[in-house]
Amino acid sequence: MGNNELEAVLQAADAKRAEYQAELCELLRIPSVSAVAAHADDVRRAGRWVADRFERMGFDCELVETGGHPIVVAERCDVPDAPTALVYGHYDVQPPDPLSEWITPPFEPTERDGNLFARGATDDKGQMLTHVFSAEAWLEAAGRLPVNLKYVIEGEEETGSPHLEEFVREHTDRLAADVVVISDTCQFAPGQPAITYGLRGVTYFELRLSGPKQDLHSGTFGGAVLNPLNALAKLLAAISDEKGRVQLDGFYDDVVSLTDAQRSRLADLSFNDESFRRKVGVKALGGEAGYSTLERRWARPTYDVCGIWGGYQGQGAKTVLPARAGAKISFRIVPNQNPDQIAASLRRFIEERCPPGIEFELETFHGGRGVLFSLDSPYMKAASRAIARGFGREPVYIREGGSIPVVSTFYGRLGADTLLLGWGLDDDNTHSPNEKFSLADFQRGIRTSACLWHELGRLER
Amino acid sequence: MGNNELEAVLQAADAKRAEYQAELCELLRIPSVSAVAAHADDVRRAGRWVADRFERMGFDCELVETGGHPIVVAERCDVPDAPTALVYGHYDVQPPDPLSEWITPPFEPTERDGNLFARGATDDKGQMLTHVFSAEAWLEAAGRLPVNLKYVIEGEEETGSPHLEEFVREHTDRLAADVVVISDTCQFAPGQPAITYGLRGVTYFELRLSGPKQDLHSGTFGGAVLNPLNALAKLLAAISDEKGRVQLDGFYDDVVSLTDAQRSRLADLSFNDESFRRKVGVKALGGEAGYSTLERRWARPTYDVCGIWGGYQGQGAKTVLPARAGAKISFRIVPNQNPDQIAASLRRFIEERCPPGIEFELETFHGGRGVLFSLDSPYMKAASRAIARGFGREPVYIREGGSIPVVSTFYGRLGADTLLLGWGLDDDNTHSPNEKFSLADFQRGIRTSACLWHELGRLER
Repeated sequence: MGNNELEAVLQAADAKRAEYQAELCELLRIPSVSAVAAHADDVRRAGRWVADRFERMGFDCELVETGGHPIVVAERCDVPDAPTALVYGHYDVQPPDPLSEWITPPFEPTERDGNLFARGATDDKGQMLTHVFSAEAWLEAAGRLPVNLKYVIEGEEETGSPHLEEFVREHTDRLAADVVVISDTCQFAPGQPAITYGLRGVTYFELRLSGPKQDLHSGTFGGAVLNPLNALAKLLAAISDEKGRVQLDGFYDDVVSLTDAQRSRLADLSFNDESFRRKVGVKALGGEAGYSTLERRWARPTYDVCGIWGGYQGQGAKTVLPARAGAKISFRIVPNQNPDQIAASLRRFIEERCPPGIEFELETFHGGRGVLFSLDSPYMKAASRAIARGFGREPVYIREGGSIPVVSTFYGRLGADTLLLGWGLDDDNTHSPNEKFSLADFQRGIRTSACLWHELGRLER
Repeated sequence: MGNNELEAVLQAADAKRAEYQAELCELLRIPSVSAVAAHADDVRRAGRWVADRFERMGFDCELVETGGHPIVVAERCDVPDAPTALVYGHYDVQPPDPLSEWITPPFEPTERDGNLFARGATDDKGQMLTHVFSAEAWLEAAGRLPVNLKYVIEGEEETGSPHLEEFVREHTDRLAADVVVISDTCQFAPGQPAITYGLRGVTYFELRLSGPKQDLHSGTFGGAVLNPLNALAKLLAAISDEKGRVQLDGFYDDVVSLTDAQRSRLADLSFNDESFRRKVGVKALGGEAGYSTLERRWARPTYDVCGIWGGYQGQGAKTVLPARAGAKISFRIVPNQNPDQIAASLRRFIEERCPPGIEFELETFHGGRGVLFSLDSPYMKAASRAIARGFGREPVYIREGGSIPVVSTFYGRLGADTLLLGWGLDDDNTHSPNEKFSLADFQRGIRTSACLWHELGRLER
């Protein structure tokens, strides 16, 4: 009976495929770039769009104001004795720069070869909407939901969710759930779905150096006045050694070493360094010595300079000793590392090494811890069954190098495990030009989500 | 008799003071930024302005085409048995960036507190014109020149004079002269004129690194793919050690050590580190260990990063592993160092250290050798007498950290010493926002130049 009902839901979802795509395009056309102040109205407009969508489905819905962009909160909890799932997603997107490298404009969604190209297509508008449309399909085909559903869809994920922690703290009772569901990750390979049971965390900083009160002639003054750009290069270079090991004091103290079992699970995955290398387009891979590529991507901490600026960047030669220089720095961290300790250690590192005559400011943008979930929970097993039916293939269990700080927030505040079910692919160009999402995977995501509500509804509370 | 004639010339020059300033402003209004292709027409317009000026004075004048911006060549050589002086100057200027830091717009000359503020005011339009107006004053007041005069005023000095070497080679006979006169340097202090007898040279490069074929998500890919920005920081940092010593192979091999006599001549100059530090606006001076501030500025080679770029430079946090990064690098070099050898050594240095997975391009912009002239030549002594009269104070003999590559070109091709007579001040903000030139010094420069033509005319050939 339950299965017949689910079959009807899946058929209803398939019948509305074109409509779902049109709705996704509508949301993708809103340039909701949360990092750029000039886009604040667009971000709000995208939030409003999502809230309207829930209201049309008969959910209780509210656009909750924060100090920044609003959070969409929606719920429909009318299934006594069934568990409650909390879906988290985000309606904001990364900046589209560099614009010149997009084949079609970032906010004009365009279909090519079965993919939809637009900023946010996979991260996270497309993936987030699969869980909205799946609920709608249930309501339309079965007239009911099999599980209690809550949604938290925020607008500041790409700037580190500065208000989410406070929001969750203030609304802990309202958000109470048995399991959290997030689709903001990747399949392991095209057609090979995956459940992500581990995530790296992140810490992000901006370092600004200043030297002379204004730009100077490098001939007249060079040699007598320290150059903030030379100093910046030295500081950034000193943060890691030649083997890719981070040199901040205590950086590795809390890192939990990979167990032999974990290493062999990673080694068993069908991953080919050479095809990865070709896909990325480099002559050689690199990183911390002594670890495999997957270990370095998923389970080891890293240090990356994400941006740098200073002095003359124009055409030709300008012999200037610049007054200022700056860089954006991120560390990917693994379970048990503490972003606050790393921030403090970085500050000490720079204090100790910044030469006299150069002054520095260090701004901490945001941090999130890494997480690891048990593969043995009933929710994990329910998700596995849902994927097997929705995708037609058993999932593999993987980790992910990216960060979803909210996962540790939910774990800490709500005590709920998170199911990270990724419909994307790792060449979807999230955070890069020409972001895309496979339209087949979009539909498989909707189907799998519908199956997940079914599987979760059958669990004992 | 000669002195009465000179007195009349100086009176004529003083009578036209307002006119000279108005003419300088006219030239300063032309944004002749040679490094920026979009300003090519403006550069040509400035060259035309200078050529017209010589034609009005009855000089033979030609705008000589090069592969780039044209060179103004003018001469009036009708004084048998008198020496020939060749004046070199330039009508192009540095880019005005950063525009936001100018108090008044760079190409709208504005007088404040006895100074004229504009890009090019002192470097070199203002200083160059002193030698034009002095000749005009002679012609107007005495009806003749006391010395044979040639002028080479180019439009590519700020981009390293890429066509001047070839021009001088092709016009060696036409440019033949006993002494070269250039005013593109500074007084030692306000009211303390100086003759610059030594200059540093320069080499300038752009280093571009590339890694993955496009920007990547630093979470998904960080740790597995080398980051061009991390690599750039390591390369730039490795070029000098903690004591400010350049680490390129052979870099110091050709450096002529300072003699005890040279060190004590520098030490005798009234130079105060503390007031220099305050003027520059830093908490501490810095540079190569073991040398005084003046030695480091004038007589020791340096390494400066003049610009850097890559990744996300905008507001907020973007977790990107950038595809590309770049930097502009200059070395100030001292007499006997060879810019070509340094370019080769830098290329080897980067080849050896650029990690696999990162590719590099190194572009060499231009280089010029350092020079040192004898303090005992008759021309040097004539210049000293001219300054004593024109400025009312004996000059001191100094060196300068900046580069005038053309000086070594003239020395090599024409066999002529150069008199570097600076009317500027070292806080004139050449190459910085709010460039200025003291109007009193502008007038003193014109008077001194008129005296110089007189003194040179009295020398035996």
